[in-house]
Amino acid sequence: MPTVEQARRYYLAADPVHDFEHIRRVLALAERVAREEGADLEIVRAAVLLHDAAGAAPGAESGERATHHEASADFARQVLAGEGWPDERIEAVQHCIRAHRFRGTEAPRTLEAKILFDCDKLDVLGAIGVARTVAYAALAGQPLTGEPSEKFKATGEKEPGEPHTPYHEFLFKLSKVKDRMQTATARQIAEERHRYLEDYFVRLRREVAGEL
Amino acid sequence: MPTVEQARRYYLAADPVHDFEHIRRVLALAERVAREEGADLEIVRAAVLLHDAAGAAPGAESGERATHHEASADFARQVLAGEGWPDERIEAVQHCIRAHRFRGTEAPRTLEAKILFDCDKLDVLGAIGVARTVAYAALAGQPLTGEPSEKFKATGEKEPGEPHTPYHEFLFKLSKVKDRMQTATARQIAEERHRYLEDYFVRLRREVAGEL
Repeated sequence: MPTVEQARRYYLAADPVHDFEHIRRVLALAERVAREEGADLEIVRAAVLLHDAAGAAPGAESGERATHHEASADFARQVLAGEGWPDERIEAVQHCIRAHRFRGTEAPRTLEAKILFDCDKLDVLGAIGVARTVAYAALAGQPLTGEPSEKFKATGEKEPGEPHTPYHEFLFKLSKVKDRMQTATARQIAEERHRYLEDYFVRLRREVAGEL
Repeated sequence: MPTVEQARRYYLAADPVHDFEHIRRVLALAERVAREEGADLEIVRAAVLLHDAAGAAPGAESGERATHHEASADFARQVLAGEGWPDERIEAVQHCIRAHRFRGTEAPRTLEAKILFDCDKLDVLGAIGVARTVAYAALAGQPLTGEPSEKFKATGEKEPGEPHTPYHEFLFKLSKVKDRMQTATARQIAEERHRYLEDYFVRLRREVAGEL
Protein backbone atom coordinates (compact mmCIF):
# COMPACT_ATOMS: atom_id res chain seq x y z
CA MET A 1 0.00 0.00 0.00
CA PRO A 2 1.39 3.45 -0.79
CA THR A 3 2.25 5.66 2.17
CA VAL A 4 0.25 8.85 2.56
CA GLU A 5 3.24 10.79 1.16
CA GLN A 6 3.50 8.47 -1.85
CA ALA A 7 -0.23 8.71 -2.48
CA ARG A 8 -0.04 12.50 -2.37
CA ARG A 9 1.87 12.42 -5.65
CA TYR A 10 -1.06 10.83 -7.49
CA TYR A 11 -3.19 13.89 -6.76
CA LEU A 12 -0.88 16.75 -7.69
CA ALA A 13 -2.97 18.06 -10.60
CA ALA A 14 -6.19 18.52 -8.65
CA ASP A 15 -7.93 21.79 -7.71
CA PRO A 16 -8.86 22.74 -4.11
CA VAL A 17 -12.21 20.93 -4.36
CA HIS A 18 -10.74 17.57 -5.47
CA ASP A 19 -7.25 17.71 -4.05
CA PHE A 20 -5.29 15.42 -1.78
CA GLU A 21 -6.77 17.11 1.29
CA HIS A 22 -9.99 15.34 0.30
CA ILE A 23 -8.12 12.01 0.42
CA ARG A 24 -6.64 12.84 3.82
CA ARG A 25 -10.03 13.75 5.25
CA VAL A 26 -11.67 10.61 3.86
CA LEU A 27 -8.79 8.58 5.31
CA ALA A 28 -9.20 10.03 8.81
CA LEU A 29 -12.93 9.37 8.75
CA ALA A 30 -12.68 5.92 7.13
CA GLU A 31 -10.17 4.77 9.74
CA ARG A 32 -12.58 5.77 12.47
CA VAL A 33 -15.61 4.17 10.79
CA ALA A 34 -13.62 1.02 9.96
CA ARG A 35 -12.68 0.62 13.61
CA GLU A 36 -16.25 1.19 14.82
CA GLU A 37 -17.67 -1.19 12.20
CA GLY A 38 -14.94 -3.83 12.60
CA ALA A 39 -13.72 -3.66 8.99
CA ASP A 40 -10.38 -4.73 7.48
CA LEU A 41 -8.34 -1.58 8.02
CA GLU A 42 -5.66 -2.38 5.45
CA ILE A 43 -8.20 -2.85 2.65
CA VAL A 44 -9.98 0.35 3.64
CA ARG A 45 -6.77 2.38 3.80
CA ALA A 46 -5.51 1.15 0.41
CA ALA A 47 -8.90 1.78 -1.18
CA VAL A 48 -9.11 5.33 0.21
CA LEU A 49 -5.58 6.27 -0.87
CA LEU A 50 -6.10 4.95 -4.41
CA HIS A 51 -9.79 5.58 -5.07
CA ASP A 52 -9.41 8.79 -7.10
CA ALA A 53 -5.81 8.27 -8.23
CA ALA A 54 -6.46 8.07 -11.98
CA GLY A 55 -8.56 10.46 -14.02
CA ALA A 56 -10.34 12.21 -11.16
CA ALA A 57 -8.66 15.56 -11.68
CA PRO A 58 -11.16 18.08 -13.05
CA GLY A 59 -8.84 18.79 -15.98
CA ALA A 60 -9.46 15.22 -17.16
CA GLU A 61 -11.87 14.88 -20.08
CA SER A 62 -15.44 14.10 -19.06
CA GLY A 63 -15.08 10.57 -20.40
CA GLU A 64 -12.05 10.09 -18.19
CA ARG A 65 -13.88 11.48 -15.18
CA ALA A 66 -16.87 9.23 -15.86
CA THR A 67 -14.64 6.16 -15.74
CA HIS A 68 -12.17 7.36 -13.10
CA HIS A 69 -13.27 4.57 -10.76
CA GLU A 70 -12.35 1.96 -13.41
CA ALA A 71 -9.03 3.64 -14.18
CA SER A 72 -8.24 3.99 -10.47
CA ALA A 73 -9.10 0.31 -9.86
CA ASP A 74 -6.69 -0.69 -12.66
CA PHE A 75 -4.04 1.57 -11.20
CA ALA A 76 -4.59 0.07 -7.73
CA ARG A 77 -3.95 -3.42 -9.14
CA GLN A 78 -0.63 -2.26 -10.60
CA VAL A 79 0.49 -0.63 -7.36
CA LEU A 80 -0.57 -3.45 -5.03
CA ALA A 81 0.59 -6.30 -7.33
CA GLY A 82 3.95 -4.52 -7.46
CA GLU A 83 4.06 -4.82 -3.66
CA GLY A 84 3.21 -8.54 -3.83
CA TRP A 85 -0.34 -8.32 -2.46
CA PRO A 86 -2.36 -11.55 -2.92
CA ASP A 87 -4.88 -11.43 -5.73
CA GLU A 88 -7.86 -11.84 -3.43
CA ARG A 89 -6.97 -8.76 -1.41
CA ILE A 90 -6.23 -6.73 -4.52
CA GLU A 91 -9.70 -7.61 -5.77
CA ALA A 92 -11.20 -6.53 -2.45
CA VAL A 93 -9.56 -3.10 -2.85
CA GLN A 94 -10.64 -2.90 -6.50
CA HIS A 95 -14.25 -3.63 -5.57
CA CYS A 96 -14.19 -0.74 -3.07
CA ILE A 97 -12.86 1.61 -5.73
CA ARG A 98 -15.23 0.51 -8.49
CA ALA A 99 -18.24 0.77 -6.15
CA HIS A 100 -17.51 4.19 -4.60
CA ARG A 101 -19.49 6.32 -7.01
CA PHE A 102 -23.04 7.54 -6.47
CA ARG A 103 -24.03 6.58 -10.00
CA GLY A 104 -21.63 3.69 -10.43
CA THR A 105 -22.70 0.44 -12.05
CA GLU A 106 -21.28 -1.64 -9.21
CA ALA A 107 -22.97 -1.36 -5.81
CA PRO A 108 -20.83 -1.68 -2.65
CA ARG A 109 -21.21 -5.28 -1.39
CA THR A 110 -18.47 -5.60 1.24
CA LEU A 111 -18.19 -3.71 4.51
CA GLU A 112 -14.96 -2.11 3.28
CA ALA A 113 -16.61 -0.92 0.05
CA LYS A 114 -19.54 0.50 2.02
CA ILE A 115 -17.11 2.42 4.21
CA LEU A 116 -15.29 4.01 1.28
CA PHE A 117 -18.63 4.87 -0.35
CA ASP A 118 -19.91 6.47 2.86
CA CYS A 119 -16.79 8.38 3.83
CA ASP A 120 -16.25 9.75 0.33
CA LYS A 121 -19.81 11.14 0.40
CA LEU A 122 -19.54 12.45 3.98
CA ASP A 123 -16.88 14.85 2.72
CA VAL A 124 -19.60 16.95 1.03
CA LEU A 125 -21.52 17.53 4.29
CA GLY A 126 -20.84 19.58 7.44
CA ALA A 127 -18.37 22.46 7.61
CA ILE A 128 -16.28 20.75 4.93
CA GLY A 129 -19.37 20.60 2.73
CA VAL A 130 -19.80 24.35 3.17
CA ALA A 131 -16.19 24.99 2.13
CA ARG A 132 -16.21 22.65 -0.87
CA THR A 133 -19.58 23.85 -2.17
CA VAL A 134 -18.66 27.52 -1.85
CA ALA A 135 -15.23 26.93 -3.43
CA TYR A 136 -16.84 25.10 -6.33
CA ALA A 137 -19.28 27.97 -6.89
CA ALA A 138 -16.50 30.56 -6.78
CA LEU A 139 -14.38 28.64 -9.30
CA ALA A 140 -17.40 28.22 -11.58
CA GLY A 141 -18.18 31.97 -11.40
CA GLN A 142 -21.50 31.33 -9.63
CA PRO A 143 -22.93 33.70 -7.00
CA LEU A 144 -22.39 32.63 -3.38
CA THR A 145 -25.87 33.60 -2.23
CA GLY A 146 -29.29 33.78 -3.83
CA GLU A 147 -32.72 32.31 -3.36
CA PRO A 148 -33.82 29.30 -5.46
CA SER A 149 -37.10 29.79 -7.31
CA GLU A 150 -40.30 28.04 -6.20
CA LYS A 151 -40.03 25.98 -9.39
CA PHE A 152 -36.56 24.80 -8.45
CA LYS A 153 -37.65 23.92 -4.95
CA ALA A 154 -40.56 21.88 -6.27
CA THR A 155 -38.96 20.21 -9.30
CA GLY A 156 -35.17 20.71 -9.22
CA GLU A 157 -35.46 22.62 -12.54
CA LYS A 158 -34.51 26.27 -12.77
CA GLU A 159 -36.34 29.24 -14.18
CA PRO A 160 -34.70 30.71 -17.34
CA GLY A 161 -31.57 32.60 -16.28
CA GLU A 162 -31.72 31.37 -12.68
CA PRO A 163 -28.14 31.04 -11.44
CA HIS A 164 -26.86 27.98 -9.61
CA THR A 165 -25.74 28.76 -6.05
CA PRO A 166 -24.38 26.67 -3.17
CA TYR A 167 -27.90 26.49 -1.74
CA HIS A 168 -29.22 25.11 -5.04
CA GLU A 169 -26.52 22.45 -4.79
CA PHE A 170 -27.62 21.64 -1.25
CA LEU A 171 -31.29 21.28 -2.20
CA PHE A 172 -30.62 19.34 -5.38
CA LYS A 173 -27.89 17.00 -4.23
CA LEU A 174 -26.25 17.35 -0.83
CA SER A 175 -29.50 17.12 1.15
CA LYS A 176 -30.00 13.57 -0.18
CA VAL A 177 -26.60 12.21 0.80
CA LYS A 178 -27.58 11.21 4.35
CA ASP A 179 -30.23 8.83 3.00
CA ARG A 180 -27.68 6.92 0.92
CA MET A 181 -25.35 5.89 3.75
CA GLN A 182 -24.53 2.16 3.85
CA THR A 183 -23.23 1.79 7.42
CA ALA A 184 -24.83 2.76 10.74
CA THR A 185 -21.75 4.66 11.93
CA ALA A 186 -21.65 6.81 8.79
CA ARG A 187 -25.41 7.38 8.93
CA GLN A 188 -25.07 8.99 12.36
CA ILE A 189 -22.19 11.19 11.20
CA ALA A 190 -24.15 12.12 8.06
CA GLU A 191 -27.23 13.17 10.00
CA GLU A 192 -25.26 15.44 12.27
CA ARG A 193 -23.26 16.95 9.39
CA HIS A 194 -26.46 17.36 7.37
CA ARG A 195 -28.03 19.41 10.14
CA TYR A 196 -24.99 21.66 10.36
CA LEU A 197 -24.98 22.24 6.60
CA GLU A 198 -28.72 22.93 6.50
CA ASP A 199 -28.42 25.34 9.44
CA TYR A 200 -25.60 27.10 7.61
CA PHE A 201 -27.88 27.92 4.69
CA VAL A 202 -30.73 29.02 6.98
CA ARG A 203 -28.32 31.30 8.77
CA LEU A 204 -26.81 32.60 5.54
CA ARG A 205 -30.23 33.63 4.30
CA ARG A 206 -30.96 35.46 7.55
CA GLU A 207 -27.64 37.30 7.41
CA VAL A 208 -28.25 38.28 3.79
CA ALA A 209 -31.59 39.76 4.86
CA GLY A 210 -29.77 41.74 7.60
CA GLU A 211 -31.57 39.86 10.39
CA LEU A 212 -28.49 38.37 12.09
CA MET B 1 -29.67 58.58 -5.31
CA PRO B 2 -29.38 55.68 -7.74
CA THR B 3 -31.95 52.92 -7.41
CA VAL B 4 -30.68 49.49 -6.45
CA GLU B 5 -31.03 48.41 -10.10
CA GLN B 6 -29.09 51.46 -11.33
CA ALA B 7 -26.37 50.89 -8.76
CA ARG B 8 -26.06 47.26 -9.84
CA ARG B 9 -24.58 48.45 -13.16
CA TYR B 10 -21.61 50.06 -11.37
CA TYR B 11 -20.52 46.66 -10.09
CA LEU B 12 -20.73 44.49 -13.20
CA ALA B 13 -17.02 43.73 -13.46
CA ALA B 14 -16.62 42.33 -9.95
CA ASP B 15 -15.90 38.73 -8.91
CA PRO B 16 -18.10 36.75 -6.48
CA VAL B 17 -16.18 38.08 -3.46
CA HIS B 18 -16.61 41.77 -4.33
CA ASP B 19 -19.79 41.76 -6.38
CA PHE B 20 -23.07 43.61 -6.13
CA GLU B 21 -24.41 40.98 -3.72
CA HIS B 22 -21.96 42.49 -1.22
CA ILE B 23 -23.61 45.88 -1.77
CA ARG B 24 -27.09 44.41 -1.34
CA ARG B 25 -26.12 42.69 1.91
CA VAL B 26 -24.48 45.82 3.30
CA LEU B 27 -27.60 47.77 2.33
CA ALA B 28 -29.97 45.41 4.17
CA LEU B 29 -27.81 45.53 7.28
CA ALA B 30 -27.14 49.29 7.11
CA GLU B 31 -30.86 50.06 6.84
CA ARG B 32 -31.47 48.03 9.97
CA VAL B 33 -28.58 49.58 11.90
CA ALA B 34 -29.51 53.09 10.69
CA ARG B 35 -33.03 52.63 12.04
CA GLU B 36 -31.83 51.28 15.37
CA GLU B 37 -29.24 54.05 15.73
CA GLY B 38 -31.53 56.84 14.46
CA ALA B 39 -29.32 57.81 11.49
CA ASP B 40 -30.21 59.69 8.29
CA LEU B 41 -31.39 56.81 6.12
CA GLU B 42 -31.03 58.63 2.79
CA ILE B 43 -27.37 59.46 3.43
CA VAL B 44 -26.68 55.89 4.53
CA ARG B 45 -28.40 54.36 1.51
CA ALA B 46 -26.61 56.59 -0.99
CA ALA B 47 -23.27 55.94 0.71
CA VAL B 48 -23.78 52.16 0.68
CA LEU B 49 -24.84 52.04 -2.97
CA LEU B 50 -21.91 54.16 -4.13
CA HIS B 51 -19.11 53.23 -1.70
CA ASP B 52 -17.29 50.76 -3.96
CA ALA B 53 -18.58 52.03 -7.30
CA ALA B 54 -15.24 53.14 -8.75
CA GLY B 55 -12.05 51.11 -8.85
CA ALA B 56 -13.02 48.42 -6.33
CA ALA B 57 -13.15 45.58 -8.86
CA PRO B 58 -10.28 43.17 -8.26
CA GLY B 59 -9.17 43.57 -11.88
CA ALA B 60 -8.35 47.19 -11.07
CA GLU B 61 -4.68 47.94 -10.61
CA SER B 62 -3.50 47.93 -7.01
CA GLY B 63 -3.12 51.71 -7.07
CA GLU B 64 -6.72 52.02 -8.16
CA ARG B 65 -7.88 49.64 -5.46
CA ALA B 66 -5.88 51.54 -2.85
CA THR B 67 -7.68 54.76 -3.74
CA HIS B 68 -11.09 53.31 -4.61
CA HIS B 69 -12.67 55.20 -1.73
CA GLU B 70 -11.46 58.51 -3.20
CA ALA B 71 -12.56 57.57 -6.72
CA SER B 72 -15.94 56.38 -5.44
CA ALA B 73 -16.42 59.60 -3.45
CA ASP B 74 -15.72 61.62 -6.62
CA PHE B 75 -18.13 59.45 -8.55
CA ALA B 76 -20.79 59.89 -5.84
CA ARG B 77 -20.51 63.67 -6.19
CA GLN B 78 -21.12 63.43 -9.94
CA VAL B 79 -24.15 61.18 -9.51
CA LEU B 80 -25.77 63.11 -6.66
CA ALA B 81 -25.00 66.58 -8.06
CA GLY B 82 -26.62 65.39 -11.30
CA GLU B 83 -29.76 64.68 -9.25
CA GLY B 84 -29.62 68.16 -7.68
CA TRP B 85 -28.62 67.09 -4.15
CA PRO B 86 -27.51 70.02 -1.95
CA ASP B 87 -23.76 70.29 -1.48
CA GLU B 88 -23.91 69.68 2.26
CA ARG B 89 -25.64 66.33 1.82
CA ILE B 90 -23.32 65.32 -0.99
CA GLU B 91 -20.41 66.00 1.33
CA ALA B 92 -22.04 63.90 4.04
CA VAL B 93 -22.19 60.96 1.61
CA GLN B 94 -18.63 61.58 0.45
CA HIS B 95 -17.35 61.54 4.01
CA CYS B 96 -19.00 58.13 4.56
CA ILE B 97 -17.34 56.76 1.44
CA ARG B 98 -13.89 58.21 2.14
CA ALA B 99 -13.97 56.94 5.73
CA HIS B 100 -15.17 53.38 5.09
CA ARG B 101 -11.79 51.71 4.79
CA PHE B 102 -9.97 49.91 7.60
CA ARG B 103 -6.69 51.58 6.73
CA GLY B 104 -8.16 54.78 5.35
CA THR B 105 -6.66 58.18 6.17
CA GLU B 106 -10.05 59.62 7.14
CA ALA B 107 -11.75 58.21 10.26
CA PRO B 108 -15.58 58.01 10.34
CA ARG B 109 -16.85 61.05 12.28
CA THR B 110 -20.60 61.05 11.59
CA LEU B 111 -23.11 58.42 12.63
CA GLU B 112 -23.82 57.65 8.98
CA ALA B 113 -20.11 57.14 8.24
CA LYS B 114 -19.77 54.88 11.26
CA ILE B 115 -22.69 52.79 10.02
CA LEU B 116 -21.19 52.31 6.54
CA PHE B 117 -17.82 51.45 8.11
CA ASP B 118 -19.41 48.91 10.44
CA CYS B 119 -21.76 47.26 7.96
CA ASP B 120 -19.09 46.95 5.28
CA LYS B 121 -16.87 45.11 7.79
CA LEU B 122 -19.71 42.95 9.17
CA ASP B 123 -19.93 41.37 5.73
CA VAL B 124 -16.69 39.44 6.42
CA LEU B 125 -18.10 37.77 9.55
CA GLY B 126 -20.72 35.06 10.17
CA ALA B 127 -21.92 32.62 7.52
CA ILE B 128 -21.24 35.25 4.86
CA GLY B 129 -17.69 35.55 6.17
CA VAL B 130 -17.26 31.80 5.75
CA ALA B 131 -18.47 31.97 2.15
CA ARG B 132 -16.38 34.99 1.17
CA THR B 133 -13.21 33.74 2.84
CA VAL B 134 -13.50 30.29 1.29
CA ALA B 135 -14.33 31.74 -2.14
CA TYR B 136 -11.32 34.04 -1.95
CA ALA B 137 -9.06 31.11 -1.05
CA ALA B 138 -10.43 28.99 -3.91
CA LEU B 139 -9.92 31.79 -6.45
CA ALA B 140 -6.38 32.38 -5.16
CA GLY B 141 -5.55 28.65 -5.43
CA GLN B 142 -5.10 28.33 -1.66
CA PRO B 143 -6.03 25.18 0.27
CA LEU B 144 -9.38 25.29 2.08
CA THR B 145 -8.12 23.58 5.22
CA GLY B 146 -4.81 23.38 7.04
CA GLU B 147 -3.39 24.18 10.42
CA PRO B 148 -1.48 27.45 10.95
CA SER B 149 1.99 27.02 12.44
CA GLU B 150 2.73 27.97 16.05
CA LYS B 151 4.85 30.81 14.68
CA PHE B 152 1.90 32.18 12.72
CA LYS B 153 -0.38 31.93 15.73
CA ALA B 154 2.11 33.84 17.87
CA THR B 155 3.33 36.45 15.41
CA GLY B 156 1.12 36.47 12.29
CA GLU B 157 4.19 35.49 10.23
CA LYS B 158 4.35 32.20 8.37
CA GLU B 159 6.97 29.48 8.27
CA PRO B 160 8.71 29.16 4.86
CA GLY B 161 6.30 27.50 2.44
CA GLU B 162 3.34 27.69 4.84
CA PRO B 163 0.20 28.16 2.73
CA HIS B 164 -2.42 30.77 3.51
CA THR B 165 -5.83 29.25 4.35
CA PRO B 166 -9.22 30.66 5.38
CA TYR B 167 -8.31 29.96 9.01
CA HIS B 168 -5.09 31.98 8.64
CA GLU B 169 -7.25 34.81 7.33
CA PHE B 170 -9.52 34.50 10.34
CA LEU B 171 -6.67 34.58 12.84
CA PHE B 172 -4.78 37.37 11.11
CA LYS B 173 -7.63 39.68 10.17
CA LEU B 174 -11.25 38.66 10.61
CA SER B 175 -10.97 37.91 14.33
CA LYS B 176 -10.10 41.56 14.95
CA VAL B 177 -13.06 43.08 13.14
CA LYS B 178 -15.46 42.93 16.10
CA ASP B 179 -13.14 45.21 18.11
CA ARG B 180 -13.25 47.93 15.47
CA MET B 181 -17.01 48.49 15.41
CA GLN B 182 -18.08 52.13 15.80
CA THR B 183 -21.75 51.71 16.79
CA ALA B 184 -23.32 49.69 19.59
CA THR B 185 -25.82 47.98 17.28
CA ALA B 186 -23.08 46.78 14.94
CA ARG B 187 -20.91 45.69 17.84
CA GLN B 188 -23.62 43.28 19.02
CA ILE B 189 -24.08 41.89 15.52
CA ALA B 190 -20.31 41.56 15.14
CA GLU B 191 -19.90 39.63 18.35
CA GLU B 192 -22.56 37.11 17.41
CA ARG B 193 -21.21 36.71 13.85
CA HIS B 194 -17.68 36.43 15.21
CA ARG B 195 -18.70 33.52 17.42
CA TYR B 196 -20.33 31.74 14.50
CA LEU B 197 -17.27 32.19 12.31
CA GLU B 198 -14.90 31.05 15.06
CA ASP B 199 -17.08 28.00 15.77
CA TYR B 200 -17.04 27.19 12.06
CA PHE B 201 -13.26 26.88 12.08
CA VAL B 202 -13.26 24.83 15.30
CA ARG B 203 -15.79 22.50 13.74
CA LEU B 204 -13.92 22.34 10.44
CA ARG B 205 -10.77 21.23 12.23
CA ARG B 206 -12.68 18.50 14.08
CA GLU B 207 -14.27 17.24 10.86
CA VAL B 208 -10.88 17.19 9.12
CA ALA B 209 -9.59 15.02 11.98
CA GLY B 210 -12.56 12.67 11.48
CA GLU B 211 -13.99 13.47 14.94
CA LEU B 212 -17.35 14.87 13.78
